[in-house]
Amino acid sequence: MEDPHKSFRRAAVFGASGGIGRALCEALVGRGIEVWAGCRSGETGLAGARGFRFDLTDEPSIERAAGLMQDAPPDLVIVASGVLTLEDATGPERTYRSLNGAAMERVFRLNTIGPALVAKHVLPLFDRSERSVFAALSARVGSLGDNRLGGWHSYRASKAALNMLLRNFAIELGRTHKHAIVAGLHPGTVDTALSEPFQGNLPEGQLTTPSEAAQNLLAVIDRLSPQDSGKVFDWKGAPVPD
Amino acid sequence: MEDPHKSFRRAAVFGASGGIGRALCEALVGRGIEVWAGCRSGETGLAGARGFRFDLTDEPSIERAAGLMQDAPPDLVIVASGVLTLEDATGPERTYRSLNGAAMERVFRLNTIGPALVAKHVLPLFDRSERSVFAALSARVGSLGDNRLGGWHSYRASKAALNMLLRNFAIELGRTHKHAIVAGLHPGTVDTALSEPFQGNLPEGQLTTPSEAAQNLLAVIDRLSPQDSGKVFDWKGAPVPD
Repeated sequence: MEDPHKSFRRAAVFGASGGIGRALCEALVGRGIEVWAGCRSGETGLAGARGFRFDLTDEPSIERAAGLMQDAPPDLVIVASGVLTLEDATGPERTYRSLNGAAMERVFRLNTIGPALVAKHVLPLFDRSERSVFAALSARVGSLGDNRLGGWHSYRASKAALNMLLRNFAIELGRTHKHAIVAGLHPGTVDTALSEPFQGNLPEGQLTTPSEAAQNLLAVIDRLSPQDSGKVFDWKGAPVPD
Repeated sequence: MEDPHKSFRRAAVFGASGGIGRALCEALVGRGIEVWAGCRSGETGLAGARGFRFDLTDEPSIERAAGLMQDAPPDLVIVASGVLTLEDATGPERTYRSLNGAAMERVFRLNTIGPALVAKHVLPLFDRSERSVFAALSARVGSLGDNRLGGWHSYRASKAALNMLLRNFAIELGRTHKHAIVAGLHPGTVDTALSEPFQGNLPEGQLTTPSEAAQNLLAVIDRLSPQDSGKVFDWKGAPVPD
């Protein structure tokens, strides 16, 4: 971690309709950065951001999105999507007795494989000579070392797998891009649809607004250096254990 | 890690047709332990072991297998299956540029979700009053802390996710079963179909036979104590970092 670096020029946010992703776009636009804002419909309604369509489970849509950005590539890419509870209200599991293969597969598809496919198509856009950041929303519960309570099986496993892939991408990208950084981010518990069913368990004052979370995460991203690449950081900038 | 404990009475090996799984069955039969040996055909041809049919991608087949064992439940269960290269020769990936969503999904299905579904159905068979072990073949490359080289994206991610689930199951099982142990095992590089395409890179003397690997792993399992539960151990008994 270092002092903040020079500003980014162009950012792409994959998952701009969710609470944190939307707030990240707004904060980036507020900084005067050009913003690509992607969601399934392609219409985010965000003033000052260019919308694009993509679906994490549809690789051609991710490839097309990266193609759009080719002539003016981003130096900051954030994957801000993620699921804790599925569309059919499945999960997160409290016990191994309620594991469901199809639901687990869907969680890996959305939380692990999807972000990896975004990396596949956007990392080749990064300029070798300038500071570039690929960040994905991860979670402290994806840390093995920090796991005291267990449970939330698919979510934890999908984030552990994502963290491994981010480490891998950091190693691979670091061979050719000396100024590039790949990182996972733990946003804290943010007042969004994802966390809504679980907010009751939180001590007072631990729930942040999407807008606060976005400012916190951007402040962490600002301070990231290439030696931080491959790790997960919480919203205060502290590294999360493997 | 402690001195070896009393012998197991009954073992179930899920994945008894592969190199290591088959050798584990033979070693367990050689110890005079009753052995359930499972593979897709149900026919392992192993003398002294009772065969059963299961498919990691077919949960009802796993449930039926556990049902067979209900009256004389195992106190040792080993999931010895796993893929590095898929049936269509896909993987392991050397670069993020060759990631393939369907192949990644299949690797998670086989290396992560399948073993979790075995745990779902066999952990409830464990006796609360006696030492019981659930072990799954994992791999050192599933360790984030040990990752220096990157690559093998799907395989590494699937094993990191498996390791998280094993940690989770250990926590959950430990609440009710004080003598139960859940562990991942790194077998080393063993002369099997899985490692065959990659053996050329190994320094002389680092390739073990399936039979040696089975003896090594059983010696590690023998020394596991409940305080080891949730961790991954290599074939020498050393813990693998998270």
